[in-house]
Amino acid sequence: MKTVTELLQPVEKDLEDLVLELKNLIGAGHPILQAAAEHLFSAGGKRLRPGIVLLISKAISVDSSLSTKHKRLAEITEMIHTASLVHDDVVDESSMRRGVETVHSRFNTRVAVLAGDFLFAQSSWHLANLDNVDVVKLLSRVIMDLAEGEIKQNLNRYDSGQTFSKYINKSYCKTASLIANSCKAAGVLSEISGDKLEMLYEFGKNIGLAFQVVDDILDFTGNDKQLGKPAVSDLASGYLTAPVLYALEENKNLSVLINRELAEKDDLNDALEIIMSSGAIKKSRILAEDFATHSKDAILWLPESEYKRALMALPEFVLSRLY
Amino acid sequence: MKTVTELLQPVEKDLEDLVLELKNLIGAGHPILQAAAEHLFSAGGKRLRPGIVLLISKAISVDSSLSTKHKRLAEITEMIHTASLVHDDVVDESSMRRGVETVHSRFNTRVAVLAGDFLFAQSSWHLANLDNVDVVKLLSRVIMDLAEGEIKQNLNRYDSGQTFSKYINKSYCKTASLIANSCKAAGVLSEISGDKLEMLYEFGKNIGLAFQVVDDILDFTGNDKQLGKPAVSDLASGYLTAPVLYALEENKNLSVLINRELAEKDDLNDALEIIMSSGAIKKSRILAEDFATHSKDAILWLPESEYKRALMALPEFVLSRLY
Repeated sequence: MKTVTELLQPVEKDLEDLVLELKNLIGAGHPILQAAAEHLFSAGGKRLRPGIVLLISKAISVDSSLSTKHKRLAEITEMIHTASLVHDDVVDESSMRRGVETVHSRFNTRVAVLAGDFLFAQSSWHLANLDNVDVVKLLSRVIMDLAEGEIKQNLNRYDSGQTFSKYINKSYCKTASLIANSCKAAGVLSEISGDKLEMLYEFGKNIGLAFQVVDDILDFTGNDKQLGKPAVSDLASGYLTAPVLYALEENKNLSVLINRELAEKDDLNDALEIIMSSGAIKKSRILAEDFATHSKDAILWLPESEYKRALMALPEFVLSRLY
Repeated sequence: MKTVTELLQPVEKDLEDLVLELKNLIGAGHPILQAAAEHLFSAGGKRLRPGIVLLISKAISVDSSLSTKHKRLAEITEMIHTASLVHDDVVDESSMRRGVETVHSRFNTRVAVLAGDFLFAQSSWHLANLDNVDVVKLLSRVIMDLAEGEIKQNLNRYDSGQTFSKYINKSYCKTASLIANSCKAAGVLSEISGDKLEMLYEFGKNIGLAFQVVDDILDFTGNDKQLGKPAVSDLASGYLTAPVLYALEENKNLSVLINRELAEKDDLNDALEIIMSSGAIKKSRILAEDFATHSKDAILWLPESEYKRALMALPEFVLSRLY
């Protein structure tokens, strides 16, 4: 199985330019943000989101070239993603992300709020300057979804009665919307036809959902060195993900523990035991595989190229983190 | 002298609709935000910003009617303003604003970050749906300016060497940009000519700067019941405003106190004494009057109407808070 770096190799140079450009855009003239930007954009991010936007952009380009607007779109995607991470870490009171200290714990809450706002502000400014009102709508919908997703996640903590569709909807808002809408926006900038735009959206939506379900499984099985955060952290925070919801269908005892917010001594361990001895992890894997398959199917129509091959291999890669 | 409620009387009904609409838009379906929205949009705000947008919109309309887009623009203006206040209060660690508890002290930092993000997200979503890329650019510039202004304010704390133009620039970013660009955006939606758009921008910019200088004076003279925050709070936080900068020009001893961040026992009182016994307050008043005059001059060309009369009286009203 290839690594993500190998998969993104067709746009490797473009991604290096992107990171430099982001550091320039954000840090310039603001010592506080300079440090935060350096910290954020160097912190071992996989650049999966802008990588996907760049691969799509090249895959649908007649001569595999990359316009300035497509580059800017990829940057905006990463800015929005980073801004939401910085604020989410404040809201979730997380001190670590992927093995690196979060901005508010490395600096403080003030800097984290400022840095996130500045990144959101920069992204909406650059977005407006793409001069395409359809692209502005797609990406401003993403910003709405991210805020709504974070709110929903916080509202539904320890709610053992929540439906599976609420979980999928929350995952769409927090993870898939950004990828789906930025893939579609790349197509809008290239002026491709409406049905193809929808397929790009489906590709992004399904790979995003696959990615989120895999992340949620890894929070339990934790065999991913890249995760870098304590295992079962979602459940401990009261966030009920696919493995928990599947386990709740099998074993009603689990809801007793969750309803009392895992407050008693062995609750978290007992809950973990119920989940791991159920069919929940296997069912979650099948769910992730399903999303991955839908994702691949949505871009079969792309013309053959190294970019298409990379895009087709990405859903497989997302799943490979499980093994 | 008229009160602000009397001045805004020509758009009183429209402002009532706006507050209802904002509460609906923000609160719907989110219990946490419902409470925050109720708190925010009921908290004795003067609605000066949307009031100005509505007055301008009616003043430039042939039949004094208000389009849905103009109404939406006024709502967006208030959303952006409120979002920035909520996050500024987190950054500045303020517990009170205009006599009312701030969101992060009434609820907590998590809710304040979420509520601010949600308001920014809503505003960029509604902005995109105005379907006018020029308006999107104007207002996304405002969001950039607000973030930059807050950063600059924090960077320049206790910097007794800062220039007057830095102070004006910071005041533009934090206060005037929103009013200037939303006045201009109202003109763009009405498709008025370029030179008139610039005049609307000048009106908003100058009334915004007048407003800020008056606020900064009141932080020292504090005879405004509406201010509702402890006097000299700016100086105590290290924010150097017009009165301080004028006093620094007259008395170099002040810089000694400021350079050591007013850290010794009587420093704040001593600094206050230097400022109040200098010509700084008088000079600051003249500065505010100057901005107010420029503001009025910029809209002399508007056709006669009750809306124009209200707009012409507003700069006077801003100054009247000083007496």
